[in-house]
Amino acid sequence: MFIVFEGGEGSGKSTQVKLLYEYLKANGYKVIVTREPGGTKIGEQLRTILLQGKIDKMNTITEALIFLAARSDNWEKIIKPALKNNTIVICDRFQDSTLAYQGICNNISIDLLNDICSTITNNTVPDRTYLIDIDPVIGLRRSMRHCNKDVRFENKSIEYHKRVREAYLQIANNNDRYLIIDGTTTIEKVNNIITQDINNRLLKR
Amino acid sequence: MFIVFEGGEGSGKSTQVKLLYEYLKANGYKVIVTREPGGTKIGEQLRTILLQGKIDKMNTITEALIFLAARSDNWEKIIKPALKNNTIVICDRFQDSTLAYQGICNNISIDLLNDICSTITNNTVPDRTYLIDIDPVIGLRRSMRHCNKDVRFENKSIEYHKRVREAYLQIANNNDRYLIIDGTTTIEKVNNIITQDINNRLLKR
Repeated sequence: MFIVFEGGEGSGKSTQVKLLYEYLKANGYKVIVTREPGGTKIGEQLRTILLQGKIDKMNTITEALIFLAARSDNWEKIIKPALKNNTIVICDRFQDSTLAYQGICNNISIDLLNDICSTITNNTVPDRTYLIDIDPVIGLRRSMRHCNKDVRFENKSIEYHKRVREAYLQIANNNDRYLIIDGTTTIEKVNNIITQDINNRLLKR
Repeated sequence: MFIVFEGGEGSGKSTQVKLLYEYLKANGYKVIVTREPGGTKIGEQLRTILLQGKIDKMNTITEALIFLAARSDNWEKIIKPALKNNTIVICDRFQDSTLAYQGICNNISIDLLNDICSTITNNTVPDRTYLIDIDPVIGLRRSMRHCNKDVRFENKSIEYHKRVREAYLQIANNNDRYLIIDGTTTIEKVNNIITQDINNRLLKR
């Protein structure tokens, strides 16, 4: 089972990824967590290039290609082997981040991005995607509290982040594999919605 | 004018790039040199990921995407502005390296690679490409003498390098913008062929 979390900056994705991982592990499942960009040595090197430094340090095409290279390495080394080994994979961001940020918001051809993604993953899509939806004004305020250096995206304009939110909602509303969750409620409530949903899905298998 | 040098490891490309640059500069032309992967700060970071370490550190798709990301950054920051400013650009490797190594030799879809390259360069192609052709047995012997750390490709099998040579010859024979030069002759002779060819082309402009 391949589970993905999507959402804007400060939506609480990473916290929820961690909680779901601990929940599944405590319940005896084989499970791993990974993140994009990152997850591998090369992926983390690419992550630093992508998330640190000035907003205009690279153009949108360069940015998209580096994200896709990181996905390819993570897919090949972490996600594909784990799925093959019947391990549940929880991934913090995946293909729809590329479609929302680089495709819909940065106007890079969706067809081209889909072609590259399909080549990387051999057309595999997540079994379930959780979109933690949040007003970017609230999300960015949360995110900036963490004081880390990976804030190149956080530094983009609020208009950009509002477009990202709309892009995610558009993608989620067109895909049955999505569950949209209100990210402004408590950590516990979001976690409860997710664990209930996952339990229903695991029982059906 | 956009001039590209292509060829396998140890063909003498980089030496010829330098000699042509000095020749054109001495003759009063505005000229710059760049290389792929590399040429920019981000490009050089990506170059290190690509050219150092073990052969199997990444799969062929990841490798292709990182090469393309480096091209995109170099194109946007170095090549495009220089050409716009009527500066001659000499580039050590370009799009046909991707087609030869990643496309023809690694079996990545040529259509996909061409789509990505066209998106990056808005369909711009070099005005002249010099292929310094050399038997990889000789080329690799030369290349290994340099004692640098960027030898991930040099470490690939001789069969791989032979396929790269054939791929280059195939591309060159199908493109009028190519001049194929025997890389086993002296540095001076190769340089003479190139400067004569460039002079003829610059005079026609």
